[in-house]
Amino acid sequence: MYNPQPGDRLESLDTPSMIVDLDLMEANIAKLMGRLLPAGVNIRPHLKTTKSPILARKLIDAGAKGGCVAKLSEAEVMTAGGIEDILITCEVVGPVKVARLVELFRQYPAVKTVIDSEVGASALDAALAESGLKPPLQVLIDVNVGQNRTGVAPGEPALALARHIGGLKYLKLVGVQGYEGHLQHLHDRQEREGKCRAAMAVLSGTADLLRRNGFDIPTVTTGGTGTAEFCATCPGITEVQPGSFIFMDTDYRNAVGRFYSNSLTILATVISKPEPGRAVIDAGLKSLTTDSGFAEPKDLPGVTYVPNGDEHGSLTWQDGPGLAIGDRVEMIPSHIDPTINLHDFYYAHRQGVIEEIWPVATRGKVQ
Amino acid sequence: MYNPQPGDRLESLDTPSMIVDLDLMEANIAKLMGRLLPAGVNIRPHLKTTKSPILARKLIDAGAKGGCVAKLSEAEVMTAGGIEDILITCEVVGPVKVARLVELFRQYPAVKTVIDSEVGASALDAALAESGLKPPLQVLIDVNVGQNRTGVAPGEPALALARHIGGLKYLKLVGVQGYEGHLQHLHDRQEREGKCRAAMAVLSGTADLLRRNGFDIPTVTTGGTGTAEFCATCPGITEVQPGSFIFMDTDYRNAVGRFYSNSLTILATVISKPEPGRAVIDAGLKSLTTDSGFAEPKDLPGVTYVPNGDEHGSLTWQDGPGLAIGDRVEMIPSHIDPTINLHDFYYAHRQGVIEEIWPVATRGKVQ
Repeated sequence: MYNPQPGDRLESLDTPSMIVDLDLMEANIAKLMGRLLPAGVNIRPHLKTTKSPILARKLIDAGAKGGCVAKLSEAEVMTAGGIEDILITCEVVGPVKVARLVELFRQYPAVKTVIDSEVGASALDAALAESGLKPPLQVLIDVNVGQNRTGVAPGEPALALARHIGGLKYLKLVGVQGYEGHLQHLHDRQEREGKCRAAMAVLSGTADLLRRNGFDIPTVTTGGTGTAEFCATCPGITEVQPGSFIFMDTDYRNAVGRFYSNSLTILATVISKPEPGRAVIDAGLKSLTTDSGFAEPKDLPGVTYVPNGDEHGSLTWQDGPGLAIGDRVEMIPSHIDPTINLHDFYYAHRQGVIEEIWPVATRGKVQ
Repeated sequence: MYNPQPGDRLESLDTPSMIVDLDLMEANIAKLMGRLLPAGVNIRPHLKTTKSPILARKLIDAGAKGGCVAKLSEAEVMTAGGIEDILITCEVVGPVKVARLVELFRQYPAVKTVIDSEVGASALDAALAESGLKPPLQVLIDVNVGQNRTGVAPGEPALALARHIGGLKYLKLVGVQGYEGHLQHLHDRQEREGKCRAAMAVLSGTADLLRRNGFDIPTVTTGGTGTAEFCATCPGITEVQPGSFIFMDTDYRNAVGRFYSNSLTILATVISKPEPGRAVIDAGLKSLTTDSGFAEPKDLPGVTYVPNGDEHGSLTWQDGPGLAIGDRVEMIPSHIDPTINLHDFYYAHRQGVIEEIWPVATRGKVQ
């Protein structure tokens, strides 16, 4: 039976398999902590990237404080896996999901979530009132800092929502969140920094407005892999949420450079060699996402990848010895989070020997 | 604890959830069988769509003969689930995967696979020789009928491969496969039919060439949802492999029309209403794939969907009452197979009452 174990070599893995170079991953973590911790901010990594309490623990051991998840169902897995200080960064809406949040909060009172509407706040409060739970749920106001996705408008609209939350018995406002997702992949570093600092001024300005109106706002949380280094030194920012830095992808590498290394690849096999200059590998849409461009073969200059359906991809080249049936290639994902979501396990190796196998514990947790 | 059960109404489901309208799905199955069975071909549905032995059984009960899968790991799940007559439609390459195939063949001798190279055939034969298993493994030659993905060239190259396989003791050549994947989504029906019939002439011509040279070729297998109706009446075609017809998607609907209905949707919730004319739902890249365009909201004319990251999507509109926080919408996937691969369960309902819950048993089975 196929059953890979620590101590096995990568050659023993079937393909496609998701593999992590531990030396590179550990260096990425050390670089992030070394860059951001001296600024005095909390680092609350976004665990929508790694999807694993084991990896969340490694980040905490390196200096992180808790973690973020996007969805309630991810929070259920992370808390059960021992990561109790969790911020849910998406609005929790609908009676079924609110009921699940109340159940989670009953067991793990450190769980926090974000709110961007009075109707959302009131629904949470009503469910908590009915539950008989005593401690108020900690919530943050989700502020639109220019991404134009979710979030209440900064300034007066945010203050109005704070006042609404202030009138609710079972919610405790503890901060504001603003995610400048639209800036993460700007290639020009100066432009990225300038626009990021402007967005941070909007966010911390809203926090100050709330404080001037009597609200205690200990947490101002923001940032991703493309901006965290700037956010960390912006006045008033207390916490950053980078996630992708641990593994990177081609989209982030193209935008922010090679300070962090691509530490995760998808190992694939050439299954067909139908013509000169083209080989077909066993990794297609079901192994590598395409929303942010196509994956790239690692260490194969001049070789280009194009997916050919769910389970196939073509590698093409002009010169050189090329590839033969049975050859293995490592593919660098274009977008790391949804690519990890396609796989069940990480095979973490050091120089080709598997050291650890981590389940992708929150894979598929979209609720 | 959140634990949906048959008998519950759709309103009790958290979102995003993958739901199936049973009336529409059953009509799709009946339409396919009614259209193709009279032509006298075997129907071997491609189970890379449904990813479920339960659904494979429903198709067999309706008239199908066995099923196809793309990958060995899918065949492991399907056979264990009672679907033993399985054709693996991708080449099985590499020592680890070949060893897994031998183990599977030991338990399920009806498993078949395809081959497009002498090196691939010899590797399979050598592993089978070493296994001590007696009955030869049934194989089909994968022929390139114009898709230019995998497959040996038709005519003499296919004959040369047949001769090579004929000299191997542990493989038994039982047919040819050719997939005209490049024609499935041609919007012009006449063009699709004309090019399909030409591709089928290439495939059946190769089968005839092999027969004239002494090979018994009982199976000539091909076709998808966009072409199966034509393939079924082409001379020499014995078997068709449609998969997507059971649920459809917007890409197939746009190409082949509404003979089959969109029977599967992703149920989502409006979690934010940041401005007039725009609502944010909880379904993004992790719930709906984008490789074949963006998903569409069902029964919301004038409303357009754009994904906003892994867990968000924006619905926008010009006129009308629009949507409010907490409203639910059904999203029609653009590409059904990889979208199903993102979810763990089907919730199959009839007029809003859940009748059955099916695990997506081969989700993530990319090996």
